[in-house]
Amino acid sequence: MERISATYLIETPLAVEKAAAVLAGEQSSGTFVPVPGETEELKERFAAWVEKITPLETAKEPSLPGAKSGAHKAFRRAEVVISWSVENMGWNLPALVSTIQGNLYELSQFSGLKLVDMELPPSFAKHFRGPKFGVAGCRQLTGVQHRPLIGTIIKPSIGLTPQQTAGLVKILAEAGIDFIKDDELMANPPHSPFDERVDAVMQVINAHADRTGKKVMYAFNVSDEADEMRRHYEKVVDAGGTCAMISLNSVGLAGAKKVCDFGALAIHGHRNGWGAMNRHPLLGTEFAAYQKIWRLAGVDQIHVNGIANKFWESDDSVVRSIEACGKPLLGGMAVLPVVSSGQWGGQAPETFRRTQTVDLLYMAGGGIMAHPEGPAAGVRSLRKWWEAAVEGLTMEEAVKKYPELNPSLEKFGKAK
Amino acid sequence: MERISATYLIETPLAVEKAAAVLAGEQSSGTFVPVPGETEELKERFAAWVEKITPLETAKEPSLPGAKSGAHKAFRRAEVVISWSVENMGWNLPALVSTIQGNLYELSQFSGLKLVDMELPPSFAKHFRGPKFGVAGCRQLTGVQHRPLIGTIIKPSIGLTPQQTAGLVKILAEAGIDFIKDDELMANPPHSPFDERVDAVMQVINAHADRTGKKVMYAFNVSDEADEMRRHYEKVVDAGGTCAMISLNSVGLAGAKKVCDFGALAIHGHRNGWGAMNRHPLLGTEFAAYQKIWRLAGVDQIHVNGIANKFWESDDSVVRSIEACGKPLLGGMAVLPVVSSGQWGGQAPETFRRTQTVDLLYMAGGGIMAHPEGPAAGVRSLRKWWEAAVEGLTMEEAVKKYPELNPSLEKFGKAK
Repeated sequence: MERISATYLIETPLAVEKAAAVLAGEQSSGTFVPVPGETEELKERFAAWVEKITPLETAKEPSLPGAKSGAHKAFRRAEVVISWSVENMGWNLPALVSTIQGNLYELSQFSGLKLVDMELPPSFAKHFRGPKFGVAGCRQLTGVQHRPLIGTIIKPSIGLTPQQTAGLVKILAEAGIDFIKDDELMANPPHSPFDERVDAVMQVINAHADRTGKKVMYAFNVSDEADEMRRHYEKVVDAGGTCAMISLNSVGLAGAKKVCDFGALAIHGHRNGWGAMNRHPLLGTEFAAYQKIWRLAGVDQIHVNGIANKFWESDDSVVRSIEACGKPLLGGMAVLPVVSSGQWGGQAPETFRRTQTVDLLYMAGGGIMAHPEGPAAGVRSLRKWWEAAVEGLTMEEAVKKYPELNPSLEKFGKAK
Repeated sequence: MERISATYLIETPLAVEKAAAVLAGEQSSGTFVPVPGETEELKERFAAWVEKITPLETAKEPSLPGAKSGAHKAFRRAEVVISWSVENMGWNLPALVSTIQGNLYELSQFSGLKLVDMELPPSFAKHFRGPKFGVAGCRQLTGVQHRPLIGTIIKPSIGLTPQQTAGLVKILAEAGIDFIKDDELMANPPHSPFDERVDAVMQVINAHADRTGKKVMYAFNVSDEADEMRRHYEKVVDAGGTCAMISLNSVGLAGAKKVCDFGALAIHGHRNGWGAMNRHPLLGTEFAAYQKIWRLAGVDQIHVNGIANKFWESDDSVVRSIEACGKPLLGGMAVLPVVSSGQWGGQAPETFRRTQTVDLLYMAGGGIMAHPEGPAAGVRSLRKWWEAAVEGLTMEEAVKKYPELNPSLEKFGKAK
């Protein structure tokens, strides 16, 4: 029988082997009461296995409260790999999540526990389509090849009327943008009803497309209850839109998968709330595992932060996240990483140097709207930064070779 | 305009006032670009307000990595209350979650941030029904008044066939149990297909009800994708069942609300994954806020752990959680707290002494199936423990007055 495996970073006051065995037991066959004639067979078929233990350092203090501290007052860290038979949960994403990320975080045998990654067997490819559009589909919908899609977010985050939003979309479309998104704080509020916003924005986008042949991808934030999401989604389809945005953690797996399954729009996966799941080094989950769940659900684009972002996340973590998106899942299921937070173009050389990919949706806010020579110059500047990055130039070399990059460096690079 | 407020425990290397203002800005009007003639009006209508700041202690080390440490190397803690106009998000639960629990965890202005509680204005009662059954409905469905519902979970957690499961249900029903649940690891796996399990279990439960007039409530784990959940739900209704279980965090808010909205079954809300959201003292969310979201969604029963549980959670936290469930939300929306983890009855006196309520679903595993005199004695023993608890007896006094409690104390109380 095929097996699913998950890798954890653990910290425990117990012997690592013992703690790993508790985790495996809690998340599979649990306490056995005698069931006539079946106990040994059950154990063999359904028990989770401890596949591998790699000891790491020992800490003097526990990373999290509530662990049974035992006699020795030492907290051993290790990487452990646990596996389950597919027969335990079937091809059911919520059941998979409950198995690899359920009660185990509450076990007092651990003073730290983080899901690092997971591996799925081939049968998952038969049960899950993955992203309907992915990298190639998003490129086709926007007509962008051989460079990152350039995107931006409507600001202020909240408060604009549909007409004001459409006015900004017009400026951005004329500036040559590829992608625009709603803020995650904007869904269907009384001051900007979803349908009115779609009508106003798509009128601008469709007119621009008729004139130029280029259809800007606008990610309308459909996040809501299930029936509302379906209604919003259909509204976007009817209006000629190409993308819907979901706040993945707020909507949740069953609701998001249902929206992905509709299959008519590219799905922009916003991961707001992610900090609570990842910021502690020994609690929650790493992005490598997280993005696999959402690719199985069918998300086409997923947020990864950016180099030198304004949030807490390190560049190393951002690079690992972009790389995770680039690795095939079950032979494919390509997902487009969304680079954002404090980006203005000057991070392009370092982003490319470290990831060697242009399969990105590169989002800048101020870098476009606040460019000293206007939004069109802002979009041109971002594209030029990426040309320079792909040529292998550093930030300094890029500005020397392409003096038109100077205004962005002066305005955004030196203010930082 | 009505306002929503949220209380946070924060830790910051900055002045607390400054950090709170950043949080409010990030989660509302954000960076303002000039929108002709509207800026000041927008700010006034849509900006989040810092309502209150209560300074707490100062720490020398940051609780979480990634904070901009500034010059002073001190990390100030405080409780802050932030409010938003309802107009910012409307009556949309995922948008509410993105507002009060979104990007804020990623802000480098904080070295710790935990959502403590939230307050909702009266209009939410018009848009959300809350639990369809709640405490009174679950009592009515099980015919239990004036004492906790006594429940148990099918063990082993995973691996039993539908017939084996039904065999255990028969033993438990005959023992006088009120409630039984699937394990959260069991949903619709190949070895126990959902429909077959429902048929086998409900045949036993319906026959028992026909004979005795008592219908045991069985929480079938419907957790799955949206369409599957609907199908599973309808199967339970058709078979005469009264309850469905959802792994709340794995299924997510939109999917779970949809299932609650069906309205024909009591919904048992399992919070597996909760440890990752709550175990760190300065990251994630407290149960007071968490349970309000799920009550709005319509969950009838929600897990709270138990006194002297086998997990990491403290008794104080369990007591706070039970109290949170007992407080009316928007004038009502009563939810039944599910007490579980290592319970055998002996914790009843302390549970009642500290919470003064019998509006509980009290779950015991070994305390029933492994009772020295058999499962029926196990159920009787749990009821008797609760009688003693309500009389105000301590564990010791209870055993003295009711010698029939001795076997459970000998077996479970002294082994611990």
